[in-house]
Amino acid sequence: MTSTSITDATRELLLSRIRDVPDYPKPGVLFKDITPLLADPAAFTALTDFLAELCVRHGATKIVGLEARGFILAAPVAVRAGLGFVPVRKAGKLPGATLGQAYELEYGTAEIEIHAEDLSAGDRVMVIDDVLATGGTAEASLELVRRAGAQVAGVSVLMELGFLSGRARLEAGLRDAPLEALITL
Amino acid sequence: MTSTSITDATRELLLSRIRDVPDYPKPGVLFKDITPLLADPAAFTALTDFLAELCVRHGATKIVGLEARGFILAAPVAVRAGLGFVPVRKAGKLPGATLGQAYELEYGTAEIEIHAEDLSAGDRVMVIDDVLATGGTAEASLELVRRAGAQVAGVSVLMELGFLSGRARLEAGLRDAPLEALITL
Repeated sequence: MTSTSITDATRELLLSRIRDVPDYPKPGVLFKDITPLLADPAAFTALTDFLAELCVRHGATKIVGLEARGFILAAPVAVRAGLGFVPVRKAGKLPGATLGQAYELEYGTAEIEIHAEDLSAGDRVMVIDDVLATGGTAEASLELVRRAGAQVAGVSVLMELGFLSGRARLEAGLRDAPLEALITL
Repeated sequence: MTSTSITDATRELLLSRIRDVPDYPKPGVLFKDITPLLADPAAFTALTDFLAELCVRHGATKIVGLEARGFILAAPVAVRAGLGFVPVRKAGKLPGATLGQAYELEYGTAEIEIHAEDLSAGDRVMVIDDVLATGGTAEASLELVRRAGAQVAGVSVLMELGFLSGRARLEAGLRDAPLEALITL
């Protein structure tokens, strides 16, 4: 586990473009809305550049983005870093031969999938998402990366919701790979 | 309606990275899978650069990406062109005040939404998606752009499935704005 070297000014810029939406998606939840950040080219570019730098620093050879908001952050990072992009999607959305991994939701389970052939034994994969909450999706994605035969270079998120303990949940899946959170709330 | 000036070499590269998947999502449909293109940094970068050039050429000030594959293409284009990114999402996924627009599916209807405040009267919006099929989603997104008070700079897609006549369906919504398809099948 390492911490980032993002500058205070960049962190302040990003934080200023994240909007609190109370009671979404249900009463009592304070949702962190990143759409103002995406609409601001300076902020979105700074975020992309920093995440791309992290990918290079940690020796990533492929970028995995988690559907759907993770796609928005991960795809520009892949292009910026000159690395291939691999989507992890909800079950049934990928047309080729997939590996699937179930994970627990508050009520019931869900499943995510990856195209098995998109990763190979030599790959080191950085998993990118917008938010680390309970860590269920991220944990399942690390399992998919390993089952596809690749190594985990790390997990990078814009925001970590520390009170939900996702970091502890990811420890086993990360082994010694880093979890990078630009902002911890 | 204009046509693109993408080079033959770039078009060949992109086309070579689109995989045909028969009988997906249902028997009789030949699905065009772009994941091999996304996994190839040279192809994904060439696509991003060309779409970004189109956005600049047509005077776009904002990029709208359509959930979910459209996010993967549109977000890097926004960063590359230095323009704000605005997601159009399936109903219920955006936390702020939204405008919604229904469109027809083969059986029934679906609805997409946009954050009303993400666009303003001075904006010229390029809508980006991976595929233009029947044009239902693209048509609804153009309606959302106009209802949010902005102008349409155009629609850009990687692939146009000509036999589904989406181009004709978009004519009214585009008015004189261009529909750019890098590859027509």
